[in-house]
Amino acid sequence: MLAEGINAVTEALVGGVTVEKICMLKGSASGRAGAIFAKARAAGIKVVFVEKEYLDKLSVTHRHQGVIAVVTEYEYYDLEETLAAARGEGKPLFFALLDGIEDPHNLGAVIRVADCAGVTAVVIPRHRSVGVTDTVIRVSAGATAHVKICKVANLNDAIRYLRDEGVFVYAADMDGDSVYSTDLTGDVAIVVGGEGGGVRSLTRKLCDGAISLPQLGKINSLNASVACGILLYEAVRQRMQSGK
Amino acid sequence: MLAEGINAVTEALVGGVTVEKICMLKGSASGRAGAIFAKARAAGIKVVFVEKEYLDKLSVTHRHQGVIAVVTEYEYYDLEETLAAARGEGKPLFFALLDGIEDPHNLGAVIRVADCAGVTAVVIPRHRSVGVTDTVIRVSAGATAHVKICKVANLNDAIRYLRDEGVFVYAADMDGDSVYSTDLTGDVAIVVGGEGGGVRSLTRKLCDGAISLPQLGKINSLNASVACGILLYEAVRQRMQSGK
Repeated sequence: MLAEGINAVTEALVGGVTVEKICMLKGSASGRAGAIFAKARAAGIKVVFVEKEYLDKLSVTHRHQGVIAVVTEYEYYDLEETLAAARGEGKPLFFALLDGIEDPHNLGAVIRVADCAGVTAVVIPRHRSVGVTDTVIRVSAGATAHVKICKVANLNDAIRYLRDEGVFVYAADMDGDSVYSTDLTGDVAIVVGGEGGGVRSLTRKLCDGAISLPQLGKINSLNASVACGILLYEAVRQRMQSGK
Repeated sequence: MLAEGINAVTEALVGGVTVEKICMLKGSASGRAGAIFAKARAAGIKVVFVEKEYLDKLSVTHRHQGVIAVVTEYEYYDLEETLAAARGEGKPLFFALLDGIEDPHNLGAVIRVADCAGVTAVVIPRHRSVGVTDTVIRVSAGATAHVKICKVANLNDAIRYLRDEGVFVYAADMDGDSVYSTDLTGDVAIVVGGEGGGVRSLTRKLCDGAISLPQLGKINSLNASVACGILLYEAVRQRMQSGK
């Protein structure tokens, strides 16, 4: 889908939908177009500068004002509303927070296993993270239609909020305590880092604790979606065996 | 690396190396070249028919005889030797068998988590499976250099052999018993199916039993490498907690 013109693109950047790419008229990086450019760059969204003819051809409304965004119509959930709704169901809360997953295949795979594990929601930050793009939807094998995905302005604020709500927040970290000796049967959130450096140290410090998987090999680095799947399912196992 | 000429390519197809692709002279699908073509097709290896000029340019030896194979120099381990060596170490045997994983990203991710989980070996069949290609090596983040990977002519024969050796073989199957009520602390092998239909029914029947992960979502289909990772790590957990 396309968002055309200054207002529509600006709204897409702050609203619920996912902006995949922005096409902007060459030489138009000042004024309100410049603000769009800055906001897009800060959010890690690709901006390409093109000729007027290209925009004219791409445009459906023919009122593009020199800027067109390609958007995916995924509507994110609100974290507070999602938490309140889950509390109403009486089951322990169960969140997966993703700190900087930039590979759409990884995000799609996480959402897929999050569906199977029955999480309350997957939480991703607005910055340093891929959103729910068409590739993510495809890789998730349809799970994006069922798993609640919350996009938050700031992952650290989300962690503070969850802790205030009584949720135990654990960071996945190679130096953490073994997940097998950690009680995951209550209200928990697990923070998993991205492809690069795992959970950032400031984020880790905000958490109640850190959990790790035993590493019995020589490489000892797990793909983010595989690590997330194993940790989520350990919580599933503990909950089933404790009757929750 | 290239294997050039009828003999070299024929040998590559039966030997330990992985054939990624075969380039064959247009119209040469008879005689020994025809035999190569048939063997390659049966093994799921891509064959492209090209002009003589293309082969001449690609060739290093300039004696290509109308056929050049692009191969990866990965040397597979022998299953019987690997089992014997592992027995010598006194730890319970622990195999991951892959039934028809055709996506190199999935195979690479499986090998990566197999390293972390400390498996004895990963076993893949010669047919209906991607081999250890350059993509697999890259995706595995280097784990292919450490995990023993055995390529067998027939996965069902490998299952019969492992059972004869006293290994309990479990197929991952949505209708199986919960993995959490299955004892995985002894000598075990876990068979995981490919992207399409999971473990084939004949293969499943050869196993001692079938194990499943609880499915709490709406989509309830797991990516092969994520499912494999969760199952392998459940065995790791049980072994650690039983002191093995």
